[in-house]
Amino acid sequence: MSWLTRPCARPDRDLAAAARARQAQLTKPPGSLGALETLAVQLAALQRTPRPSMERVWISVFAADHGVAAENVSAFPQAVTGEMLRNFAGGGAAVSVLAASLGATLEVVSLGTVNDPGEITGVRRAIVAPATANFCEQAAMDTAQREQALTIGMDSVRAALVGGAQLFIGGEMGIANTTAATALACALLGESPQALAGAGTGLDAAGIAHKCAVIERALARHEAARGPLEQLRCLGGFEIVALAGAFVAAAQAGLPVLVDGFITTVAALAAVRIQPEVRDWLLFGHRSHERGHARVLDALSARPLLDLELRLGEASGAACAVPLLRLACELHNGMATFAQAGVSQA
Amino acid sequence: MSWLTRPCARPDRDLAAAARARQAQLTKPPGSLGALETLAVQLAALQRTPRPSMERVWISVFAADHGVAAENVSAFPQAVTGEMLRNFAGGGAAVSVLAASLGATLEVVSLGTVNDPGEITGVRRAIVAPATANFCEQAAMDTAQREQALTIGMDSVRAALVGGAQLFIGGEMGIANTTAATALACALLGESPQALAGAGTGLDAAGIAHKCAVIERALARHEAARGPLEQLRCLGGFEIVALAGAFVAAAQAGLPVLVDGFITTVAALAAVRIQPEVRDWLLFGHRSHERGHARVLDALSARPLLDLELRLGEASGAACAVPLLRLACELHNGMATFAQAGVSQA
Repeated sequence: MSWLTRPCARPDRDLAAAARARQAQLTKPPGSLGALETLAVQLAALQRTPRPSMERVWISVFAADHGVAAENVSAFPQAVTGEMLRNFAGGGAAVSVLAASLGATLEVVSLGTVNDPGEITGVRRAIVAPATANFCEQAAMDTAQREQALTIGMDSVRAALVGGAQLFIGGEMGIANTTAATALACALLGESPQALAGAGTGLDAAGIAHKCAVIERALARHEAARGPLEQLRCLGGFEIVALAGAFVAAAQAGLPVLVDGFITTVAALAAVRIQPEVRDWLLFGHRSHERGHARVLDALSARPLLDLELRLGEASGAACAVPLLRLACELHNGMATFAQAGVSQA
Repeated sequence: MSWLTRPCARPDRDLAAAARARQAQLTKPPGSLGALETLAVQLAALQRTPRPSMERVWISVFAADHGVAAENVSAFPQAVTGEMLRNFAGGGAAVSVLAASLGATLEVVSLGTVNDPGEITGVRRAIVAPATANFCEQAAMDTAQREQALTIGMDSVRAALVGGAQLFIGGEMGIANTTAATALACALLGESPQALAGAGTGLDAAGIAHKCAVIERALARHEAARGPLEQLRCLGGFEIVALAGAFVAAAQAGLPVLVDGFITTVAALAAVRIQPEVRDWLLFGHRSHERGHARVLDALSARPLLDLELRLGEASGAACAVPLLRLACELHNGMATFAQAGVSQA
């Protein structure tokens, strides 16, 4: 995987400084636009322009099934992963509605579902396998499958770039994938499942306790796994690996990423472990209601824009934050300076 | 002021229940859209429709000067209030950029500025006086001025209704108006200035201590003022009174209100003290960085949508939350049900 080690692009510090200076001249008390000022400055540096813009947004939703679903860790049946592919492409899923409303391009990618709906218009078939293996018993995938999933993520970023995207959002769908993401986060952070496991799509306390026990078995089996790539192989899902690959590729290409909720943030953490400079390219859309998200965000020193108790995945929380990025750019570009408006300064 | 006591409209509980039932059928884990589900249900009840919509948004920004500015409580000179009128109308202020981006109607209302720019296209002149009196020395306004300002607020709501608005946002601008709003909040809540006073447009610690001393003098002078209307008269500003009048009028008309930051929330608290049923019609856009906001929000049991460390006023924080209201409506109206999408349930 020679591409994975290619260096990341570098944000432009001079443009950040220029954007900061402009913010100080706009007709408002200095700093009074809070996080929107910080965002505009950051986007100027990432886009290498004094006037950042977030009009062309690309959303890739990666769907895949998980062998660990056999351990009865989800409130929903495994068939839902395949069923949702048609719903994503057909416009009925949350992210479909959000993408349409935002004028964003939505790419739906199937990396393999146990219940295979076959060809669907609007779904990119990039099948690695019907599902990962049950990682309580063996590694979730082999090395070739991991490389394939990483490359599928990179391919999505390439398509986004060809489409002129100014922002890349990755989403995920896969029954049992909070279990995989939690196991992976535990391995990456050296945490216990009890510290990170949450309700996912709707487990009760007993369900969460069972999920913890399942993750403990997985961690014990794979305790020798060292490094993000091996941990992704042993404990990941195809969609989680694709997200990690996409985030590395986006950082290499200098394409800003807006990270969604718990599962994508775990993928982002893995990407940052692969190359620390990936972190520069990550913006964070929302703080999920899923329990482990706060800890993973802390590990990335991330402060998300929204906190709306969302816990859906599918890129839905990141999509909801897109208007804030756009408004931050428009304020930065469109407001008058004190001199232009003839307004006195403090 | 007979109109002030007219009863508020009532949200429709049956439509709320129907909207809640629909949310449970949409293709997502129950509750996983968090605050966006709550919002959609609330808006269905307020708009009395199974399919709420937030396309037509009306923003009124009320500007006025304050006699207490003579006590040196602001980081900016008083001339800025009048200067900003032209900037609001000319498109260069933050709220101007936000309103244009959102496709919202922006009404700019001058209730009187010491530095009077005269007629400006796009500014409604509804002059009560060049400024309130310095409330450290006497009541900020007389009864007739208070009634005039309340009615100016009501008139804005009437104009919004004529314009077909589905949402009313009130904003404010006026040098020294965090001092007025803090004094009023102290009177309404029985709090000390030390508990509520903040930096406003940018005071340092010494400036805040001075502001507290000024507010203490005002509270001592007006300690006999009882009830929201008398407290508004003694400690308010014309724009704060207009906001309170607008919020009562919106609730009477059944027009949902999206409350902005500290100053508008204090006006909202006064409106709720005038008629408790006003509360049903209030949504809260953001948690301001201004220190006293949290306490006033608590008094209203309000949980704002955003927390971006904004402290600008002008309706800017509420405007930033409008896309979330729209997305909540679009998700509610546009997502497929499990049955429609052929997706299995938990």
